[in-house]
Amino acid sequence: SSAGGKNYWFREFGRKIVGVGRNYREHAAELGNAVPTKPVLFLKPPSAYVVQGQSIKIPMGCTSLHHEVELGVVIQKGGADIPENQAMDYIGGYVLALDMTARDFQQEAKTKGLPWALAKGFDTSCAISEFLNRDTIPDPSNVRLWLKVNEDVKQDGNTKDMVFNIPHLISYISQFFSFEPGDLILTGTPSGVGPVKEGDTISAGLADLVSMKIFSHTKR
Amino acid sequence: SSAGGKNYWFREFGRKIVGVGRNYREHAAELGNAVPTKPVLFLKPPSAYVVQGQSIKIPMGCTSLHHEVELGVVIQKGGADIPENQAMDYIGGYVLALDMTARDFQQEAKTKGLPWALAKGFDTSCAISEFLNRDTIPDPSNVRLWLKVNEDVKQDGNTKDMVFNIPHLISYISQFFSFEPGDLILTGTPSGVGPVKEGDTISAGLADLVSMKIFSHTKR
Ligand SMILES: [Mg+2]
Ligand SMILES: [Mg+2]
Ligand SMILES: [Mg+2]
Repeated sequence: SSAGGKNYWFREFGRKIVGVGRNYREHAAELGNAVPTKPVLFLKPPSAYVVQGQSIKIPMGCTSLHHEVELGVVIQKGGADIPENQAMDYIGGYVLALDMTARDFQQEAKTKGLPWALAKGFDTSCAISEFLNRDTIPDPSNVRLWLKVNEDVKQDGNTKDMVFNIPHLISYISQFFSFEPGDLILTGTPSGVGPVKEGDTISAGLADLVSMKIFSHTKR
Repeated sequence: SSAGGKNYWFREFGRKIVGVGRNYREHAAELGNAVPTKPVLFLKPPSAYVVQGQSIKIPMGCTSLHHEVELGVVIQKGGADIPENQAMDYIGGYVLALDMTARDFQQEAKTKGLPWALAKGFDTSCAISEFLNRDTIPDPSNVRLWLKVNEDVKQDGNTKDMVFNIPHLISYISQFFSFEPGDLILTGTPSGVGPVKEGDTISAGLADLVSMKIFSHTKR
């Protein structure tokens, strides 16, 4: 399917979004977290998808919405218990993604030992660019990612700084969650996360391959 | 769609499973948790579905798999910000469901302030009975739920003891997660949760409306 001529095929029928937390050392540190010894996984529902031309809605009660720019990996082929050395064969392509996070909800969840579902999965919490076929990014382990809020550069990182690389993530996740075609993995964010307020414009890009611009406003 | 003549239509295309934790007072107490002041929400991916004739697989590394018998509410009509007094109109029907929980993974997550995704969302963590049309259960706020492990009754409760009732849950969830047709809500478990081991048989029922039997075994 497409919107505005852009290809977002996996958005229409993909059933799972698996997020990876703390997958860049400097980002783990900036939030006061240790670098994990195994991937930290969370889920967003597909109802969280949003694309350029729509807007990011600050959920009710949230006073600290944060941006996290990430490389999204789109799964093309279903499977479970995927060996690392076959993992790349399961990838259909990539997207630039924003893992929007209600940081205040997340802080409350962390403190109380409660799920992250609301903090990570609210409507519009997963902004995605158009789909990039896998051939577009021959080496996903070395791609620049950047994000601006209005005119200010907030994040400027490179996927080479991931703690767990893409084949490891696919293999690890598939031991617990079987993959289906159209699933998305959010591979974690580099440092520089911070607040997005009512009326801000977020711009983000993946090398010179794709960029997007999206507005935020309060839900009510 | 059907399997063995049974109707599981929502399993094939539903994209979201929203679980509600601590929604029965006695169950909150048995795990040492306070009764919540707002619903505790978590997510399972649709890859978690399993039905009678398949088996529940204890995930790798889990040493404390727990059963939780629940009433599942199947959404028929999409929507957001649904008022409580219209919520029942969004229901297509019900299922008997098992919210299988890796209690040890969950305990680690609670202690460390990490997501519940692995503890709640692993493959086979959402066992469901065949679909019951809404007309089958005129009053879902007063239905008996029971569960046996092998020959021993472990859970025997009634949906009248929910902390947050079904219209409240639908309305609350829809403020954050838009519903799509085929979504499932797991409405929480009565007290009596406990371990399921390799080779155990779980039997469960919803009043005299539906029952299911499912085996568990270690994944590897
Ligand atoms: Mg979670
Ligand atoms: Mg992130
Ligand atoms: Mg439960």
